[in-house]
Amino acid sequence: MPHRFIEACFRRPVDKTPIWLMRQAGRLCKTPDLAAEVTLQPVDILGVDAAILFSDILVVPEAMGMQLLLEDQGPQFPQPLAARADIDKLHVPDPERELGYVMEAIRRVRKALANRVPLIGFCGAPWTLAAYMIEGKTSRSFEKAKAALMADERLAHALLSKITDALILYLNAQLAAGAQALQIFDSWAGALGPEDYARLGAPYIARVIQNLKVDGQPVIVFGVETGELLAQLAATGADVVGVDWRVPLDEARGRVGPAVALQGNLDPASLFLPLPEQRKRVARVLELADRAGAGYVFNLGHGILPGTPVENARALVEQVHAHTPSR
Amino acid sequence: MPHRFIEACFRRPVDKTPIWLMRQAGRLCKTPDLAAEVTLQPVDILGVDAAILFSDILVVPEAMGMQLLLEDQGPQFPQPLAARADIDKLHVPDPERELGYVMEAIRRVRKALANRVPLIGFCGAPWTLAAYMIEGKTSRSFEKAKAALMADERLAHALLSKITDALILYLNAQLAAGAQALQIFDSWAGALGPEDYARLGAPYIARVIQNLKVDGQPVIVFGVETGELLAQLAATGADVVGVDWRVPLDEARGRVGPAVALQGNLDPASLFLPLPEQRKRVARVLELADRAGAGYVFNLGHGILPGTPVENARALVEQVHAHTPSR
Repeated sequence: MPHRFIEACFRRPVDKTPIWLMRQAGRLCKTPDLAAEVTLQPVDILGVDAAILFSDILVVPEAMGMQLLLEDQGPQFPQPLAARADIDKLHVPDPERELGYVMEAIRRVRKALANRVPLIGFCGAPWTLAAYMIEGKTSRSFEKAKAALMADERLAHALLSKITDALILYLNAQLAAGAQALQIFDSWAGALGPEDYARLGAPYIARVIQNLKVDGQPVIVFGVETGELLAQLAATGADVVGVDWRVPLDEARGRVGPAVALQGNLDPASLFLPLPEQRKRVARVLELADRAGAGYVFNLGHGILPGTPVENARALVEQVHAHTPSR
Repeated sequence: MPHRFIEACFRRPVDKTPIWLMRQAGRLCKTPDLAAEVTLQPVDILGVDAAILFSDILVVPEAMGMQLLLEDQGPQFPQPLAARADIDKLHVPDPERELGYVMEAIRRVRKALANRVPLIGFCGAPWTLAAYMIEGKTSRSFEKAKAALMADERLAHALLSKITDALILYLNAQLAAGAQALQIFDSWAGALGPEDYARLGAPYIARVIQNLKVDGQPVIVFGVETGELLAQLAATGADVVGVDWRVPLDEARGRVGPAVALQGNLDPASLFLPLPEQRKRVARVLELADRAGAGYVFNLGHGILPGTPVENARALVEQVHAHTPSR
């Protein structure tokens, strides 16, 4: 039987609205057994329609040659990229050899899932990874990364191309290992205005997608604060565009056009509300999704927040599964 | 001679495009002499067309009865609002008595400015202040504040109304002390989706503006990540709507309509670029502003970033002043 998550990604009819939940990055879980176990939890505990690999977008820059430190305030590159020579020193890693623990986790999860639900692999988008690699850590405004990439078009292209090449190999290896869908996270997309995103963001995502050896696996792109970028994201070749909670889904549909599915976009804070109030908000998202039509996967508008009560997440999944999308 | 900043706010013709720069909050500068001195610096050093009072939006919650600590990571309320009783204990401060140092700074700046350029007073918007007061500090997702205000409409109204009452007195006192324009900062507007903003954000800003005793002083509203909120901001009764760098000004015009002026929206990271590249970006903003028409004040899309080179800021002001807006 086809999985309803996959069917919805390709805008085919489904019996119930599929749902899965994004979560905060799993900081560098390099033990495949542990990564596999954590990946399965939401499926076992909540009954979601897809599992997402427990991993971190920053494993790719690390494999490209950057030292990565895990600090309490978040991961850091103690020697961020500072000059063209630093970029030239980066290499495009062989994923089976240098990121083998990710592929091993995928194989174990697939085995443990026994095809109950599909497994989603993922990576960070080129702009988001480049921003981390230049800033060295997360940032409020990414001015170092923006200044570096906006000031020198050739340097920007050199770095973003190298990351893109690494991501193509990495995602194709995930597909080969058994990933049944892929999501590209452009977490810092919203740091760029639309004209900069059209040069530094979207084209490199498009190049990643163009070079994927997909065979029935849908590709999702998701970013935060992407209201003005949705049309560009839809034009990358992705099958599904994720929407944060700032743009109502019917409005988002107007921006992405009819040819992609939508994913989103309940405000993650809704899961901290009393259940009756949460239910109203879930119903409203479902109503707007029906209005938006043409393929829909329920999700939060961002990762599930730490401290979210399990009973709220369970009630959410139950309510979404009680909903049959209008055709 | 009328000030070109004021003229542009009211969509009247100007000789040159006016410009001023927002900056990061001045953390609780309670010495009127020092506050006055810092307020004058951008006017003296850069030649901008308006001065903005060096103060902090959190002085109002403090005067309402909350203890405020200045920590290295940013200001904190060690005892954030946790229950209805905490809200009932807050009081609406008498601004001349309890925030007299702000009024005194305004009087001193006005004197020192000797009418060279107008002085802008300001406050935080009710939602942004409420979010700080419930979270206790800045937050990535404001889930505590959202959960509290979304879950209990009466509690939300009680808190937001009390803050609104305080802001009305506070801004009217600023006008009486000599403020020649007012800006309301809704820094965390973008944490709310449009339907929540229509309940918790915009109506309280509208109530503040409705109750201002203005006599020729324009009112500006500005928030970050407000792409989907621009129409609501324009409907608050403000004369000017500030736009962050995510929405091109011609697109913003479509959302706010013709009856308000626009302010913004150069990406603050542009001031870290080599001057020729910065100039291209400034020229592009001016081009879109001309296209947007109907009243325009140049500004960054957010506060000026720490570490911005003075020569870049000077070159920016010079270039904007060389531009005569098309009619």
